Amino acid sequence: MPVMTPAELMVFLDREFPQAATAGMAIEHLDDRTIRVRLPTSERHLRPGGTVSGPTLVWLADVGFYLLILAQLGPVALAVTTNLNINFMRKPEATSLIGEGRLLKLGRSLAVGDFTIWNDGKSEPAAHVTMTYSIPPGSMPWAAVL
Amino acid sequence: MPVMTPAELMVFLDREFPQAATAGMAIEHLDDRTIRVRLPTSERHLRPGGTVSGPTLVWLADVGFYLLILAQLGPVALAVTTNLNINFMRKPEATSLIGEGRLLKLGRSLAVGDFTIWNDGKSEPAAHVTMTYSIPPGSMPWAAVL
Amino acid sequence: MPVMTPAELMVFLDREFPQAATAGMAIEHLDDRTIRVRLPTSERHLRPGGTVSGPTLVWLADVGFYLLILAQLGPVALAVTTNLNINFMRKPEATSLIGEGRLLKLGRSLAVGDFTIWNDGKSEPAAHVTMTYSIPPGSMPWAAVL
Amino acid sequence: MPVMTPAELMVFLDREFPQAATAGMAIEHLDDRTIRVRLPTSERHLRPGGTVSGPTLVWLADVGFYLLILAQLGPVALAVTTNLNINFMRKPEATSLIGEGRLLKLGRSLAVGDFTIWNDGKSEPAAHVTMTYSIPPGSMPWAAVL
Repeated sequence: MPVMTPAELMVFLDREFPQAATAGMAIEHLDDRTIRVRLPTSERHLRPGGTVSGPTLVWLADVGFYLLILAQLGPVALAVTTNLNINFMRKPEATSLIGEGRLLKLGRSLAVGDFTIWNDGKSEPAAHVTMTYSIPPGSMPWAAVL
Repeated sequence: MPVMTPAELMVFLDREFPQAATAGMAIEHLDDRTIRVRLPTSERHLRPGGTVSGPTLVWLADVGFYLLILAQLGPVALAVTTNLNINFMRKPEATSLIGEGRLLKLGRSLAVGDFTIWNDGKSEPAAHVTMTYSIPPGSMPWAAVL
Repeated sequence: MPVMTPAELMVFLDREFPQAATAGMAIEHLDDRTIRVRLPTSERHLRPGGTVSGPTLVWLADVGFYLLILAQLGPVALAVTTNLNINFMRKPEATSLIGEGRLLKLGRSLAVGDFTIWNDGKSEPAAHVTMTYSIPPGSMPWAAVL
Repeated sequence: MPVMTPAELMVFLDREFPQAATAGMAIEHLDDRTIRVRLPTSERHLRPGGTVSGPTLVWLADVGFYLLILAQLGPVALAVTTNLNINFMRKPEATSLIGEGRLLKLGRSLAVGDFTIWNDGKSEPAAHVTMTYSIPPGSMPWAAVL
């Protein structure tokens, strides 16, 4: 069971990532291994041609996976991204983006997971992201959960 | 629907990757997006301490994903790996390895997918691999299927 | 020898990536295998704590490597990023960022290279990025140069 | 300055990676940030068509980067690979392989670097590898050196 609810995570996000809050990101699902977030696409995410920019996809996966980790660790955590690998597969359109994250490992010092990003209503993903977060010593008073 | 059956893929593997055949790799499941393979661990895959070597995990994911692509394209294909990203998460033990592959994109020139590897019976993965294969022009006479 | 000069690339950038132009990115060096760019850090790139955001580093590497490819191919090219792998190694400070790109392969259909990012004056890199671009058929009328 | 010489590293390798020793890997250069190794290609590394297998390239980069880290930390270290990203760029031929490693970060808990692999005498690389090693607490009695 996560130790933070979606509402608590959104309060945390408001404070730590004000851009995410104003961007309208919402958490649609959360459990102890997965998260689903939604991001309405706005003008500032677009590139010429009406496609969503790569850095926006990176940002969505990074924030979404951070929320998934925080949900398990609680708000004391100070995890930082150490590695991010993204495959851009299809040009995302200017509709809402759906991101589904999966926690593959939550260890004492490293968390690993992946994130798949779609345009809402599409069956084929626009991008797939794998990430590693470094978890500072002391932020997990309990044994690794996965 | 795949255009090759597991049995046909194994015949192809025998010819192209004789090491895979002699290693006892088996296909346990195959459909148009996923594959599950099993590799019995033998002495030559082990490192001091009884753990399976990293290159063995890389090899398993690479061969398994290649089979998944071939199953969709048929035996004429000559796909080659262009990118492989692996996260080693837990030391694999010297029991059978299970690999589950997922096709995220099968385009005209690139195929992208991921592969998760477990020890048989474990719920937490030992490694996660993301791969891109380059598909030579002409090897897909039909439109991209995904 | 590159087929576009830094000044020509900046004109192209103005048109295609207006954000890059207004961000004040400059090309400090360019040859047939390497590029060095400089990005003055501004408020909008910062995260709480005064550090430059991850997506800004991704964006810098992506634009910088794109310029390096364009310089060899000319302005007709329409390369798109297919894979990007970034290691965040040290928190970048709010001073100018220096990015050094290196072309490892410029083939008929794929270009591969890496990018190292520093704070100006520092000897240890903040981030290292490896990227693959897909080059559409027909955009290179000449044989692969590397 | 490294704390282990190439000869001391080779003794260590003999003991820990007997395959590497019998494969004839040699260290041609070593300093506090870089290493160059040579691997004579033998029958068992080859794939049909006379090309060196992908797992062999992965193995070469992994062992070579491990030696580079050990050279700085001394033989007490127990670093393990956590992430490896490889771009296969040209088919390697069945001649000696040269690998050049570069330490980008040697921190308290993570080491990051890259490795470029050539056929001896060629100017264009066959593969480029980026790796992260996890360094267990206590294995570095001194402050991070980079």
